[in-house]
Amino acid sequence: MKIGIIGGLGPLATVKFMEMLNNRLINIDKEIELVVINDPTTPDRTSYILDNTKDNPVNSILEMVKKLEIFDCNLLVMPCNTASYFYKEIINNTNILFINIVEETVKYLNNNNINKVGLLATEGTIKSGIYKELLDNYNIELIIPNDNEQQIISSIIYDGIKSGNEINLNDFYSVINHLKNLGSEKIILGCTELSALKEIYKLKDEILVDAMEILADSTINYIKNTD
Amino acid sequence: MKIGIIGGLGPLATVKFMEMLNNRLINIDKEIELVVINDPTTPDRTSYILDNTKDNPVNSILEMVKKLEIFDCNLLVMPCNTASYFYKEIINNTNILFINIVEETVKYLNNNNINKVGLLATEGTIKSGIYKELLDNYNIELIIPNDNEQQIISSIIYDGIKSGNEINLNDFYSVINHLKNLGSEKIILGCTELSALKEIYKLKDEILVDAMEILADSTINYIKNTD
Repeated sequence: MKIGIIGGLGPLATVKFMEMLNNRLINIDKEIELVVINDPTTPDRTSYILDNTKDNPVNSILEMVKKLEIFDCNLLVMPCNTASYFYKEIINNTNILFINIVEETVKYLNNNNINKVGLLATEGTIKSGIYKELLDNYNIELIIPNDNEQQIISSIIYDGIKSGNEINLNDFYSVINHLKNLGSEKIILGCTELSALKEIYKLKDEILVDAMEILADSTINYIKNTD
Repeated sequence: MKIGIIGGLGPLATVKFMEMLNNRLINIDKEIELVVINDPTTPDRTSYILDNTKDNPVNSILEMVKKLEIFDCNLLVMPCNTASYFYKEIINNTNILFINIVEETVKYLNNNNINKVGLLATEGTIKSGIYKELLDNYNIELIIPNDNEQQIISSIIYDGIKSGNEINLNDFYSVINHLKNLGSEKIILGCTELSALKEIYKLKDEILVDAMEILADSTINYIKNTD
């Protein structure tokens, strides 16, 4: 079986996602080939979502999809929440099954009877409403950071993780605590750079729901349940 | 520019190699696409080298090369020392430049005026003589572990790193100290699983020469010096 990874969004998150898959594959007795296209030149997703006159990343994403088709992949996954904004364009342009990180995360929350959830993500993910739209389907209330808090999170993502710099975890936890006080039963790490942060700093807080881990679990479930 | 990675030998080493490349690419202002084929079903290299009636991994490796050709990669690299045994078959079957991890490591030792070097690697790498042959060209003396020590190293590689289990670092250092006492000025980590071990346990010993790091450096040098 071949799993195609639309990668490079960003490169660190892609590597962390492969690590997650590898760790889960160790105990599975199936022959799994991973094919990864790691194109970090894809235009920034948030920039485009906030200002549609900026470079559109969708062509670069669809090019990666076309390349992965050459390999006859059985499944495509994309460890990037913001890029899920282009979900429909992806599924309209390929016959390969695509597992959507946002959809899987929302289904996970619903399966766990969550009613109110916080979201830490890029401005693109939040403003585009990709989480809100799906959460609404399940009547799960979404709590998002205020403008100041969003600036903290965006800075952690862009100036911190993507740039390979140290993170001020106190700032990060101040946002988490506020979302918790507003009633969040869980808080989605809805940006794969934040998933990487969780792994790098070995954060164990039960309130955090790591979208990238859910995508890895869903990928493994697909592998287990498919011949 | 596109860099093709012949991966999955093993999967953990591939991820660690991508991480090394990503860390080095952060400060380079060039558009670099990584394409990774991570086929962990490639037959074990050491098994074949020690017993040629076993499954030959070369076909699987050449298949990965052919797939990477479809992507018009400018450069191929393979983060696996043992598989460098098939080096000539690879370069005879592709027109894409291939950087050989063993050759780069030996050149590095020569550039640093090393006369005597220890080697920690799989039995396949040691018995095949791929390091010895190249070291001989530069009159660098090779010191290898005795049979008991080789068993320790093989067990660290196969039962430890490849299987995701804890390592007994005392055993590892007992071998290193013996090779040091026999006159090794440097000791090659000549198996990418040992490179992963170095990274996981954050080993800083100056005597260790990490072949995978040298491959990452050579890849970056190629990128820097090529338009």
